[in-house]
Amino acid sequence: MRVHLVGTGLIGTSLGLALTRHGDEVTLEDAVPTHAALARDLGAGRLPGPDEVLEPDLVVVAAPPDVTAGCVVAALARFPGAAVTDVASVKGSVLAAVRASGAELARYCGSHPMAGRERSGAVSGRHDLFDGRAWVVTPTPETLPEVTALVSDVARAAGAAVRRLPPAEHDRAVAAVSHVPQLAASLVAARLEALDEAAVALAGQGLRDVTRIAESDPHLWTQILAGNAGAVREVLDGLAADLGAVVDALAALEAGADAPGARGTLATTIAAGNAGHARIPGKHGAAPTIYETVRVLVPDEPGQLGRLFADIGEIGTNIEEFHLDHGLGQDFGLAEVDVVPAAAAGLADALATRGWRIHG
Amino acid sequence: MRVHLVGTGLIGTSLGLALTRHGDEVTLEDAVPTHAALARDLGAGRLPGPDEVLEPDLVVVAAPPDVTAGCVVAALARFPGAAVTDVASVKGSVLAAVRASGAELARYCGSHPMAGRERSGAVSGRHDLFDGRAWVVTPTPETLPEVTALVSDVARAAGAAVRRLPPAEHDRAVAAVSHVPQLAASLVAARLEALDEAAVALAGQGLRDVTRIAESDPHLWTQILAGNAGAVREVLDGLAADLGAVVDALAALEAGADAPGARGTLATTIAAGNAGHARIPGKHGAAPTIYETVRVLVPDEPGQLGRLFADIGEIGTNIEEFHLDHGLGQDFGLAEVDVVPAAAAGLADALATRGWRIHG
Repeated sequence: MRVHLVGTGLIGTSLGLALTRHGDEVTLEDAVPTHAALARDLGAGRLPGPDEVLEPDLVVVAAPPDVTAGCVVAALARFPGAAVTDVASVKGSVLAAVRASGAELARYCGSHPMAGRERSGAVSGRHDLFDGRAWVVTPTPETLPEVTALVSDVARAAGAAVRRLPPAEHDRAVAAVSHVPQLAASLVAARLEALDEAAVALAGQGLRDVTRIAESDPHLWTQILAGNAGAVREVLDGLAADLGAVVDALAALEAGADAPGARGTLATTIAAGNAGHARIPGKHGAAPTIYETVRVLVPDEPGQLGRLFADIGEIGTNIEEFHLDHGLGQDFGLAEVDVVPAAAAGLADALATRGWRIHG
Repeated sequence: MRVHLVGTGLIGTSLGLALTRHGDEVTLEDAVPTHAALARDLGAGRLPGPDEVLEPDLVVVAAPPDVTAGCVVAALARFPGAAVTDVASVKGSVLAAVRASGAELARYCGSHPMAGRERSGAVSGRHDLFDGRAWVVTPTPETLPEVTALVSDVARAAGAAVRRLPPAEHDRAVAAVSHVPQLAASLVAARLEALDEAAVALAGQGLRDVTRIAESDPHLWTQILAGNAGAVREVLDGLAADLGAVVDALAALEAGADAPGARGTLATTIAAGNAGHARIPGKHGAAPTIYETVRVLVPDEPGQLGRLFADIGEIGTNIEEFHLDHGLGQDFGLAEVDVVPAAAAGLADALATRGWRIHG
C-alpha cells in the first residue's frame, strides 16, 4: 500500500514508523520541510523527489486540529485517485468544514487514533504508539465502503483496534470520556495554585489521580476543545447543573438549615458517581473485573522494589494491576498488587513468608 | 499510656491495633457493643469491666463525623482527668459544636489522620493503617500545650507524621486537596451513567485516573461534605466561576464567533491547571521530582509481569513509580517504570537485552 502522510509530528511520524515496519510504502510531507526530513531520518518513510508525481492509495492528514480540514480539502483536490483520512481528536467540525468547501466526500473518511504521549514532535514518535489502542473510524453516508475499509486496514496495520462510529457520536463520546475529564482535572488543579504550602502538603493519592492529566498542553487542548465546543458544552451543562445543586446544598447547610434535602443532594451526587464509575470497562475493553488487592510495604531504599518484583516473579502469580503509592514523611511506599480473588491469599502468604510486611 | 477509644470502626480499630503493638494500654467502647467486642477479638484492646472506673490519659473519639462532637462533649465530662481528641475529617464544625456546648476546651485537641481504606468496619482495621500518613493536629488557643503534645505522641506512636494546623486552615486545605477533588470525580463519573456502550468503550487511562475515587461511600461523604460545607462551597465557587467562563467560551465558539477571547479562556484554563498541578508535592512531601519513564510492553499471559518484575529486580535499578496501563482490545499492557533520569537509558537497554519491547 502507498500511504502519503501530511504532517510529521508525534502521530504522523509514529504512523510512518508503524506502516514502514508493516511493509507499506510511506511518503512524508510537513508544512515545515525540516520536520519532514527529521521524520525521514528517523525511518518514518521517504521524501518525494522534486518532480515526482505521487499516486498514493491513502493520504493521512496528521496536522493540528485547527488546520486539519484545510489539509483534507487540499489532499482531496491534489490526489484525485486517493482515499483521504485525518487523525484529529475532533470529527464533526472537521467534517463540516470539508463539506462546506464543496470537496468530494466519497473519498473522505475521518478517523481518530486514541493514542498519544505527553511529549510531541517527530522525535517522540514510536512505531508502537498505536499498539492495542482504539482507532475510531467515522465514515459519513457519502463515504465509499472501500474508503472506510482502506482506512480501517491502515489502522489495523498500525496495531490499533478499529471502532466505527458516526462523527457526531464520536464527538459526544470523547466529550464525556476525554474532554470533560481533562477540563475537570484542570479546574481542580487550578484551585491549588493559590494554596498555602502547608495545605498542598496534605495532598494524597486521590488528588494526584484526579489531577494527573492537568499537565496537558494548553495550545493543543485549546484546539481540541474549540473543535468540539458543542458536545463539550452539552456535557458541561449537565455537570454545571449538578455542581450548582451541590453548591446550593452546601450553602443551605452553611446557613444552618436542618436541610434534609441538602444532605440528599450530596448523597445523590456521590451515588451517581458510583453508578457512572461502574460503567467504565476493565482492561481490553471487557466488563469491569473485580480484583483483590494485596498491599505490601516497600522501604524506600535502593533495590527494595526490585526485590519485591523479583519475589513476585518467583512466586509466579499473574498481576492484573500494580500501583505504587508513596507515604508522606516516612521512608517507604505502599505497593498495591491487584490479582484475581482466588490468588490473593496465596500471594499475601508467600510474600509474608519472604519477609514482606503485608498491609491489609 | 492509657488510651480509651470511643468508636471501633476502621479508624478506631486500626488505632487500637497500632497502640497495642506500641505497648499502650487500650480500652474500647462502641455505641454497638458487639462492634467493640469484635475489635477486642481482633486484638485492638480490652473491654472495661462492668464496674471498672476508667482513668485514661487520652480519649480518642473515632465515631462518624455527624456524632463526633456529641461524643467529645460526653468524654470531656465523663473523664475529667483525660485529654480528648477526635479523628473526624472535618474540624471546624466539630469544634464549634463542642464550644457551643460549654465544654472545657483546654483538654480538647481535634485531629485528623489522613488515612483510610475503601472498606470500613473493625474487620478492615490494620495496625499499619497510619504508617507514613499525615496526621493533622488542630489545637485551639484554649488547648493546653501538654494536651496537644499527648495527641501528637499518640499519632506518632501509631506511625503517622504529625502536621499542626489551626482547625479552619485544616478545613480549607482538605476542601481543596480532598473534598473538591472527590466531588469533581463524582460529577465527571456521573456523566457516564447515561452514555452509550460504544461511548464508554472509548474510556482511557485519563478517565480512569480522574474518576478512581468516584467509588467512595455516599453515606460517609455526605457527612464529610456537610461538616465542611463552608470551606467546600468557597472552593467550589471559584471552580464554578472558572467552569462558567469555559461554558461561555464554548458557547461563543459554537455560535461561530471568531472569538479570540474565547480561545484565550480555554488556554488560560488548561494553563492554570498546569500551574496548580506543579504545586503537588512529590513522594514523602518533598518537592516534585521529575523522573524519566521507561515504557515496556507486557504480554497479558500468566507470569509475564512476574518475569518483568524478576528482570527489573536482577538489573537492580531503583524504581520510583510503577504503573500498569492496559491497552484496548489487544493482549498486552504497557508498564510505565519511573526512574531517576540518570538510570533510564541503562534500564531500557538492560530490559531490551533481556528481550523486552521498550516503548519510548
